[in-house]
Amino acid sequence: MSNAATVVDAFIEAVERRDLDAALDLVSDDVEYENVPMAVVHGRDAVRDTLAPLVASAAEVEWRVLEQVHDADTVLNERIDRFRVDGRWIEVRVAGVFKIRDGRITRWCDYFDLQQFSSQLGGS
Amino acid sequence: MSNAATVVDAFIEAVERRDLDAALDLVSDDVEYENVPMAVVHGRDAVRDTLAPLVASAAEVEWRVLEQVHDADTVLNERIDRFRVDGRWIEVRVAGVFKIRDGRITRWCDYFDLQQFSSQLGGS
Repeated sequence: MSNAATVVDAFIEAVERRDLDAALDLVSDDVEYENVPMAVVHGRDAVRDTLAPLVASAAEVEWRVLEQVHDADTVLNERIDRFRVDGRWIEVRVAGVFKIRDGRITRWCDYFDLQQFSSQLGGS
Repeated sequence: MSNAATVVDAFIEAVERRDLDAALDLVSDDVEYENVPMAVVHGRDAVRDTLAPLVASAAEVEWRVLEQVHDADTVLNERIDRFRVDGRWIEVRVAGVFKIRDGRITRWCDYFDLQQFSSQLGGS
C-alpha cells in the first residue's frame, strides 16, 4: 500500500490535523516546493516556514481532494484548500503536482490564482 | 490504445497544429470548460470561442506537457502553454484536469495564475 498516492494522502491528512511535524516527515530534506505564482523554495524548513503561519492562523484546515491520479512516482490532484480564520473559511482552488521518492515528497508544486487567494486574506 | 490519456494527447496535438476542428471533435457537446481564475463555460462552441482568438493570434502554439498521469477516465497534467505572438513567446504555466467519456473530453479545467498570463499579453 505504500505507493505515491498514499504518501500524498498522509501528507494532506497531517496538514489537516495541523500536525506539521508529521507532514514534514513526509517531505525529503531537499524537497523543491513551489507555489507557482510565487517563489520556488528548497528544503524541509522552507516548507515549514510557508505552512506554519497558515496553519497557525487557522482554527481548522481542510484540503478537499476533488480529483487525484498517480503513477509510480507522480501524483497530481485537484483540491480546494480551506482554512477557517477568524470564523470564516478562506478557500483556494488548487492543482498540485507531487513527485515521490523513497516514501517522501521530493517536489511539491501548487498551481492557483494568487489574486483569488490574496483577495480573501485581505478581508474582501 | 484509446484510453483517457490518448484523447488528451490528441487534443493537445490538434491545438498545437492550430487545427481547432480536430481539437473540438475531441470534446463532448456538453463539455464543461473552466479557466479557474475566469469563468466556467459549457459546450463545444464556448471552447471554440475561447481558443480561436488565442490560436489565431499565434504563429506557433506549443503546449509542453511536463507531467501527466491518468486513470480510466481522468487525466491531470502540468504544462507550459506557449504562444508565439508578434515574434515573442508568451508562456503560461498551467495544471489541467480532464474528464473523458466515450473518447471525448467532458470536463476541462485549467489552473493558472491570471496575472502571470495577462501581464504578458499586456506587453510587459
